[in-house]
Amino acid sequence: MRDDNLVERLLGGDRRALARTISKIEGEDPAVPEMIREIYPRTGRAITIGFTGPPGVGKSSIIAKLIRLYREEGKKVGVVSVDPSSPFTRGAILGDRIRLADHFLDKDVFIRSMGSRGHLGGLAGASRLAAMAMEAYGIDVILYETVGVGQGEVEVASAADTVVLCLQPGAGDAVQALKAGVMEVADVFCINKADHPQARGAAAEVRSILEIGHELDPDAPVPPIVLTRGDNGEGVEELKGEIEGHREFLRESGRMEGRRLAAMREFVLAWATNKLEKEIRERLSREDAGLMEKVREREVDPITAAETLYKEV
Amino acid sequence: MRDDNLVERLLGGDRRALARTISKIEGEDPAVPEMIREIYPRTGRAITIGFTGPPGVGKSSIIAKLIRLYREEGKKVGVVSVDPSSPFTRGAILGDRIRLADHFLDKDVFIRSMGSRGHLGGLAGASRLAAMAMEAYGIDVILYETVGVGQGEVEVASAADTVVLCLQPGAGDAVQALKAGVMEVADVFCINKADHPQARGAAAEVRSILEIGHELDPDAPVPPIVLTRGDNGEGVEELKGEIEGHREFLRESGRMEGRRLAAMREFVLAWATNKLEKEIRERLSREDAGLMEKVREREVDPITAAETLYKEV
Repeated sequence: MRDDNLVERLLGGDRRALARTISKIEGEDPAVPEMIREIYPRTGRAITIGFTGPPGVGKSSIIAKLIRLYREEGKKVGVVSVDPSSPFTRGAILGDRIRLADHFLDKDVFIRSMGSRGHLGGLAGASRLAAMAMEAYGIDVILYETVGVGQGEVEVASAADTVVLCLQPGAGDAVQALKAGVMEVADVFCINKADHPQARGAAAEVRSILEIGHELDPDAPVPPIVLTRGDNGEGVEELKGEIEGHREFLRESGRMEGRRLAAMREFVLAWATNKLEKEIRERLSREDAGLMEKVREREVDPITAAETLYKEV
Repeated sequence: MRDDNLVERLLGGDRRALARTISKIEGEDPAVPEMIREIYPRTGRAITIGFTGPPGVGKSSIIAKLIRLYREEGKKVGVVSVDPSSPFTRGAILGDRIRLADHFLDKDVFIRSMGSRGHLGGLAGASRLAAMAMEAYGIDVILYETVGVGQGEVEVASAADTVVLCLQPGAGDAVQALKAGVMEVADVFCINKADHPQARGAAAEVRSILEIGHELDPDAPVPPIVLTRGDNGEGVEELKGEIEGHREFLRESGRMEGRRLAAMREFVLAWATNKLEKEIRERLSREDAGLMEKVREREVDPITAAETLYKEV
């Protein structure tokens, strides 16, 4: 496949052009900045939802059901799945993908995993660009799906207008999420496996944590908590309603613009910073023999070494 | 307390001077680089051990027992505890601290928590500098204790010569740690709550994961797995033996130097990068009205905005 007019074909709704564009984003093709220049003005209308939460809570099952609901409305759906970089995890990811398999044959559902962390702007940046490409292609609803509850996952999910945190009962997930700083960014909570005997207890636990948060910041709305069942789809319609409710709140309160701008600002900062970091790494590699040797011999301390690199950039 | 000759007093074994120095590191006092210049040549002899693992596995209890063993040998011990930045977590941290309370009155045990993430060089950088100050003061064994299994925690723990990953039975911790990329950096595994009916099962699970890792990289030694009980100290002596065994391996195989140099290299890179990131943030704040407004209006795409910032630094 030739890459002439790739963006043009993407904008014309060519599915293979979309796949190819995202591959270029993932591969950090030098053409990407120019492509984004053309793509970016066509973005900003899609509904974007971040899904985060620990592995095994059933995010993929819920997403599969949610996709079905959006498809019934005739909306085109895109999923950007973000996988941790560890080479060990491939198997687990594959398992998750299988749960989305219902939608593999649907031309109006586009699912894409993003893997490595080496990207300019980080994995959050790359998934962000992939979502832009999807939107320019004509996708109406974009789901950012992340595996895990680390800081990286939070960054990915935070690119979305609405962040859903999925937890399961009885696994201490809420406490884990709390510690990872995920609770603070979630707009809607989803307790999956609602048939679990501890499901209501888990919801109560989350609610009490949220109330403490609410006391600390009384202006922020208290996020709703929805009980779902990924296996039979129970509660997923309600979840969709709460996501739309949050969207409505953002629009009516005038917070949508500010939220999007803040997210875009993080993208810009991450991209510029990563580019500089790359340059610093390259510089250190060139100077390594000398500079790090001196640090090793304790002739130069590490801060002085860092300041040297900083000044030379 | 005057700060004249602070480093001199630190080097002379003045405990208050050590506390004050670490406060300056935490507060990013402009005097820190100069202080590190004096401190750094006095470092490199201490035993450093990183302790990481999810909250609630009993790391603090094990560390308390391990401190006792080192104290029996007459060694001075320092603990650098790294807390996640979320303001919600204070209570949990307090609980952990209480477990180390036995040692609060011991003049030869120095325990210090590091909190915020805003430091130059990151939290990993700040804890690293705190450890240098401890060593220059005369500490023989430094424990980096982290809460959680995220990338940040991995970075903190990786500053140590030996990394211990603590897990508990029956919580799916191994899988979680695997996904966070922590398994790859651990030199010794500790399954706490050895009296739990699933303890041996958890050890077997970790072992089978490690064997897969070993097949991928046959030159790396397979890390030992120790079953411990934080409550009564069972297995902690064995854990200490395995930590010493790993140290011996590093020394005999000649890998110690390389490992330390790589860790120091990361410090230098992080420091230089964070300093540049700060400069970029400041620049964006100054230009914000103009540049981000254009991004919002879709006149400028975010990559172009980032490249603008990058070039101006």
